[in-house]
Amino acid sequence: MDPAKDQADELARRLAAGERGALARLISWAENKDPRFAAALAGFYPRVGRAWRLGITGPPGAGKSSLVSALIEKLRESGQTVGVLAIDPSSPYSGGALLGDRIRMEERTTDPGVYIRSMATRAGSGGLARAAVDAADVMDAFGFDTLLIETVGVGQTEYEIVGAADLVLVVLCPGAGDGIQAMKAGLLEVADVLVANKSDQPGNEQLVLDLEDALKLRSLSRRGQAKEVPVVPVSAHSGAGLDTLVQVIAAARSARGQGELTLLRQEKRLRQVRRIVRERLEDALFGPGGPGERAADLLGQSRTPYDVADQLLGALPRSGPATPTTP
Amino acid sequence: MDPAKDQADELARRLAAGERGALARLISWAENKDPRFAAALAGFYPRVGRAWRLGITGPPGAGKSSLVSALIEKLRESGQTVGVLAIDPSSPYSGGALLGDRIRMEERTTDPGVYIRSMATRAGSGGLARAAVDAADVMDAFGFDTLLIETVGVGQTEYEIVGAADLVLVVLCPGAGDGIQAMKAGLLEVADVLVANKSDQPGNEQLVLDLEDALKLRSLSRRGQAKEVPVVPVSAHSGAGLDTLVQVIAAARSARGQGELTLLRQEKRLRQVRRIVRERLEDALFGPGGPGERAADLLGQSRTPYDVADQLLGALPRSGPATPTTP
Repeated sequence: MDPAKDQADELARRLAAGERGALARLISWAENKDPRFAAALAGFYPRVGRAWRLGITGPPGAGKSSLVSALIEKLRESGQTVGVLAIDPSSPYSGGALLGDRIRMEERTTDPGVYIRSMATRAGSGGLARAAVDAADVMDAFGFDTLLIETVGVGQTEYEIVGAADLVLVVLCPGAGDGIQAMKAGLLEVADVLVANKSDQPGNEQLVLDLEDALKLRSLSRRGQAKEVPVVPVSAHSGAGLDTLVQVIAAARSARGQGELTLLRQEKRLRQVRRIVRERLEDALFGPGGPGERAADLLGQSRTPYDVADQLLGALPRSGPATPTTP
Repeated sequence: MDPAKDQADELARRLAAGERGALARLISWAENKDPRFAAALAGFYPRVGRAWRLGITGPPGAGKSSLVSALIEKLRESGQTVGVLAIDPSSPYSGGALLGDRIRMEERTTDPGVYIRSMATRAGSGGLARAAVDAADVMDAFGFDTLLIETVGVGQTEYEIVGAADLVLVVLCPGAGDGIQAMKAGLLEVADVLVANKSDQPGNEQLVLDLEDALKLRSLSRRGQAKEVPVVPVSAHSGAGLDTLVQVIAAARSARGQGELTLLRQEKRLRQVRRIVRERLEDALFGPGGPGERAADLLGQSRTPYDVADQLLGALPRSGPATPTTP
């Protein structure tokens, strides 16, 4: 008799049966670090791995959410079901307000083939990437054909989140970031496809040329070892170039053999293992009642941060941090 | 007889004696996660805490490095010595190339009152914030009056790095980011002072107004509980507004009483303890010979990431991860 385990099994069963309530609840478990999530995941894990996961990132103002809306439409036209995860790691304060338009988007959706979910920063920036992958697993197991995982803004946390997807689209537009700026921000590194959005605006052709130059430069500097990254001009607004983009995405998928995909996904799973390990250790050390509560006192005795870290690590529970129990 | 400890003590002594070679070498130890760093830090820790640390961040293209150059000049005019740390967490690839201009800057410096050091991403993005604080401690103990800690680009890692400073300047310019964009990117949250750079360019007045509006909005939404953030228009190029900026920085320093500063620094030290703990645990689990090497095999047996994480945590060495020994 383990009521937590029973609840987890029940929810996994309901997810497999296609219940939206179970979908929403499991994502909330992931988001809130509910200890029952691990058991639920074990229940539906055999169903995970069929969805094609697209990560979408780019600087604020590049038109990511318009592109996501346009992609949803295109994918629905081709008969695919779509799960969308919009993630804002920027700050607990801006989070709420800026996810406003996403939430309105969620409310507007009456198409049963589309599910949109926003996540803000509740879990902390490390925990957010972990929670995003968990949420994507839930959507995957539910049965969506394609997942769109979008971040608001750019940065390491955002790259970690979209990098867990099978293919990463980086969205840029004239003004919001030219080729050099994109390179500086590390955007080129994370991109599998570069989308030059707002192709109806002046400067877009130059943006495409700049990006192609930046890619060539990178390819040269790595002696041709850099991956091929297509640059696709689109206008999410008018729809121009969207069919090409959908084709480029499909081509990238088929170019990657099943073996390569399995290998890539395995690597990405390993990163998820590390995130979970990190989060559990962090909680064991710095959570309520943990040895971390003594850290401030120890520092007050003018010990160096390294000394204090050693003291805390020495106080780590014998068995290693245990699986958290139901609070 | 512990040769590692002797080397650490020797280097700490040489740092206190004002040897630049010791300064450079200790920062490299911090950067390369040299196990001798902890012992060296213990040696010079009593000297840490006298420097005033300014963090400087902002989107690429906002003119951060021009501002840093201009600030160095102003601070030198007032007789202060200045240590500069330029940090690029963006990517191991872009890192080298983009730090190029900083490195040229380093070479140009013949003023013994200025020391400039660049750090790229060698230590991983988590380790980079830890290494940046260690490097700042080294510069502080060496005796620089003011430290300028600058990041290339914006994002969570960058905020963590500049957030370890006593005061954070966020640099924006017309076009590269208006008030709303800054809010979206979470830049407002990290700022103690907003610098509207390129005041000689069109749109700068509008930028100042937008930023002030964004700050007012934030203050309203928190019922006046938000901190006061001055907006200072400057032109790093022409020098306009720089004296005001220096005064604003000085005023912020004196407005903060010694008690408040001590408290703030204590909080920031705690974060450093957590970074060190995290890094050591990570190394103990996922370093060479660690239990993490079994993770891929375990995942291959279609266990969930949570199951694998539990297995690895159970295999954590009895005493907790030990202080790494000299490799």
